[in-house]
Amino acid sequence: MPELRKDPITGRWIIVATERAKRPKDYAAEKPVKQGGNCPFCPGNEASTPTEVMAFRGEGKAANSSGWRVRVIPNKFPALRIEGDLARRGEGMFDIMNGIGAHEVIIETPDHEKSLADLSPGEVEEVLAAYRGRSLDLRKDERLRYILIFRNHGRSAGASLEHPHSQLIATPVVPKRVQEEIHGAKQYYEYRERCVFCDMIKEEGLFGKRVILENDSFVAIAPFASRFPFETWLLPKRHDGDFGAISDGEIKACASALREILRRMKQLLTDPPYNFIIHTAPLQNHVEGEMHWHLEIMPRLTQVAGFEWGSGFYINPTPPEEAADYLRKA
Amino acid sequence: MPELRKDPITGRWIIVATERAKRPKDYAAEKPVKQGGNCPFCPGNEASTPTEVMAFRGEGKAANSSGWRVRVIPNKFPALRIEGDLARRGEGMFDIMNGIGAHEVIIETPDHEKSLADLSPGEVEEVLAAYRGRSLDLRKDERLRYILIFRNHGRSAGASLEHPHSQLIATPVVPKRVQEEIHGAKQYYEYRERCVFCDMIKEEGLFGKRVILENDSFVAIAPFASRFPFETWLLPKRHDGDFGAISDGEIKACASALREILRRMKQLLTDPPYNFIIHTAPLQNHVEGEMHWHLEIMPRLTQVAGFEWGSGFYINPTPPEEAADYLRKA
Repeated sequence: MPELRKDPITGRWIIVATERAKRPKDYAAEKPVKQGGNCPFCPGNEASTPTEVMAFRGEGKAANSSGWRVRVIPNKFPALRIEGDLARRGEGMFDIMNGIGAHEVIIETPDHEKSLADLSPGEVEEVLAAYRGRSLDLRKDERLRYILIFRNHGRSAGASLEHPHSQLIATPVVPKRVQEEIHGAKQYYEYRERCVFCDMIKEEGLFGKRVILENDSFVAIAPFASRFPFETWLLPKRHDGDFGAISDGEIKACASALREILRRMKQLLTDPPYNFIIHTAPLQNHVEGEMHWHLEIMPRLTQVAGFEWGSGFYINPTPPEEAADYLRKA
Repeated sequence: MPELRKDPITGRWIIVATERAKRPKDYAAEKPVKQGGNCPFCPGNEASTPTEVMAFRGEGKAANSSGWRVRVIPNKFPALRIEGDLARRGEGMFDIMNGIGAHEVIIETPDHEKSLADLSPGEVEEVLAAYRGRSLDLRKDERLRYILIFRNHGRSAGASLEHPHSQLIATPVVPKRVQEEIHGAKQYYEYRERCVFCDMIKEEGLFGKRVILENDSFVAIAPFASRFPFETWLLPKRHDGDFGAISDGEIKACASALREILRRMKQLLTDPPYNFIIHTAPLQNHVEGEMHWHLEIMPRLTQVAGFEWGSGFYINPTPPEEAADYLRKA
């Protein structure tokens, strides 16, 4: 059972893998990204993954057989496990609990060679629909407080398998970064009685210089205080804290914008490694209108080094106005 | 002039390089680490760096000539600049100020081929003495609120020049990570009327299982909630918030412990990339005894990916008890 441990100074939680703990030699021998052939995510290899929890496939086809378009499975080596109870406890001055949660993999396409940017608009829509489906299902588990959906693309962005996939980790505590965002949004909300994200959308629309693209329901901007060069946020125009409440129409618009941004980044930045994450409201606790879900795309073009780790400051060598201009024209 | 921009949601500051901004092509063409030959940090090439601000060299030798043992220079491409004023201002809903600060490089040895782990105890002491010297000098500038000293080792930990060096960045705002640490330490202090770091040192000493090494004045531990495998904190036993107040005797003990940890990591983990940072109290504002300066060493063996960026959670595949055991025996 993995452990959740709390840093007694900052309150930051970390997950310690207690089974199959890595020894010093294991890091030196880190395997390269798995190439085709015996890829467990490829059609025909369904038996080599845990039993699927959801899939989009043709009518009348059996679960865990091929013929799927999007397939969601539990992670074979999960960071957190769904079985058991939290058993919150102390260990001397320290706080600890069992690593309860969910860790799932969303296999985005049967095609090993494609990336999310290469899929058709309809295919990207199904990926987002799978995100929504899992989000709505997992929140029934009352032990869970947060669902984080994310994607790692490229080895240096943490992707350890080549086959296109996203991941979902559901945690029994609200992550620190999300707490910080909600705290900040709440302060703004209390002061101005408006949502900070809605205000950003309006303000950026007015200036225009950091807007990358826009459609009926979504706007993509290079945020004013971008941590990373070419960082891009995709925001729904309709104020809603909960990603799970996205409508079918919004999924269509979101997929179209997301696909377009990824395609432009791929072309402009030569298929850069990137991470994207969806920030949404926590489960269970009510958020009073200050949260506004969104998707953050972080190309990994620079190294995060001592200064960033020590300070939480980021040095961005490309002003977001210029990044937006490049991405607008790409 | 670089800009400091504040994220309106989280309050996180970032530094935007406005001169020589990088274009998309510049990232693809990222240069490899500079090899010997025309290294600007090597003796004989003093004229190719900015004028030194401090050096340890033999008696009677001229500044900016060779013959130094440790040499401190302003960074040729500084993230922040010392000239000008802050000019705090708004831009619509956003907050911005000029990128005032200092960015210096501590060249640790004339020997291009060595790393900090390879230096003699006396040589490491002089590096720490240079840190202290610069810390005491820079705090005279009342615009500065924080001095962060850090070291990047290895390309993937952000080192862009091979010649052994550390860096110092002085900022006009207290960095977010430091604020968080102080906030947490303060909460603990108010609740228990004791320093959380002092308590950690006592508790770890009692258990022993996360202690890596210890001498008269310092203890090295694998922290209970280590974010990274083999993360190591070096803490002074004497309670003091201010690194600048380190005594000559403590410098000797700190250098001995730091050198020993780096040597063990180099051997055990095959010269891993790493960052280390010194966390100390902010300048100007008084901290009421809750801060306790320390040095955090973070080997970079795992990728920080979407989950970590999105959540602030870390997944550590090596429990700190096991890491400490390996490092104790190395």
